[in-house]
Amino acid sequence: MEQRILGLDPGLAILGFGAIQCSTPDVSNPCALEQVTPLDFGVIQTPAGTDMGDRLQMIYEDLHTVLNQVKPDLISLEKLFFYRMGNTIAIAQARGVIMLVLAQHKMPLVEFTPAQIKQALTGYGNAEKYQVQEAVARELNLDKIPKPDDAADALAVALTAWYQH
Amino acid sequence: MEQRILGLDPGLAILGFGAIQCSTPDVSNPCALEQVTPLDFGVIQTPAGTDMGDRLQMIYEDLHTVLNQVKPDLISLEKLFFYRMGNTIAIAQARGVIMLVLAQHKMPLVEFTPAQIKQALTGYGNAEKYQVQEAVARELNLDKIPKPDDAADALAVALTAWYQH
Repeated sequence: MEQRILGLDPGLAILGFGAIQCSTPDVSNPCALEQVTPLDFGVIQTPAGTDMGDRLQMIYEDLHTVLNQVKPDLISLEKLFFYRMGNTIAIAQARGVIMLVLAQHKMPLVEFTPAQIKQALTGYGNAEKYQVQEAVARELNLDKIPKPDDAADALAVALTAWYQH
Repeated sequence: MEQRILGLDPGLAILGFGAIQCSTPDVSNPCALEQVTPLDFGVIQTPAGTDMGDRLQMIYEDLHTVLNQVKPDLISLEKLFFYRMGNTIAIAQARGVIMLVLAQHKMPLVEFTPAQIKQALTGYGNAEKYQVQEAVARELNLDKIPKPDDAADALAVALTAWYQH
């Protein structure tokens, strides 16, 4: 049995993505954590100072490409977190395009708050960002924390969905 | 000379659109208000209780259809107005998809705040909604206010862009 989960950390300037794969020869058994491996991770970036519409179009095209390459079975998306109003609007606009692309691929979707992701990775809903990223590296048997940060965060979002299964 | 302006009143549940056309036989002269006529107006609706992604996909498809039918030269878009946070996020997500579609059509875009639209139509930035809608009917020589309200509002957004030209 093989399952691929793609985690997304939404943003307008930087959208992190991180895919994990879990494979087990035994169809009847879910795979154990040792069988979960990172498949692909990275970021989709859009340049500041470019038209909002053009930036959204870059996200639209690049996210389609990522989905076609990764071919995930499930998407895990971080819920919008309010920090500054100006940013929140921009991120919500990007998030609208992300949800559109996911709908066009008819992808099943789960969503988690930042606190749920921290809780799942570290056992503590108020954990620091670096603690979550260290947990990602440890649980995926990586020598070091994946870079950039947004890719590591996206892997954390994907792992949260795996834990919930 | 002919120019078509499509006004949009963004929303997730109801997205109003209103197109005006201004035609003058004299290429060297801009057309007068009497030569501005409504071309098409209406709303794109998405049902509450449907998946956010599917609603965004409806907006994506229907707005492409409207643009292909109206073939505007310019888009006039109402800027996001903050009223309630929950709604603002949903509208911003829809607005992201709207801006994506406009970028895909490579449409020139102008944006106005609600106060700018009220000012342009009634001469008063704090005008009531019905005063703006009455101005739309009067200036487009319509017997009655276009319905639904969101379509009338979108015509007001289009007229604002026309005044600015």
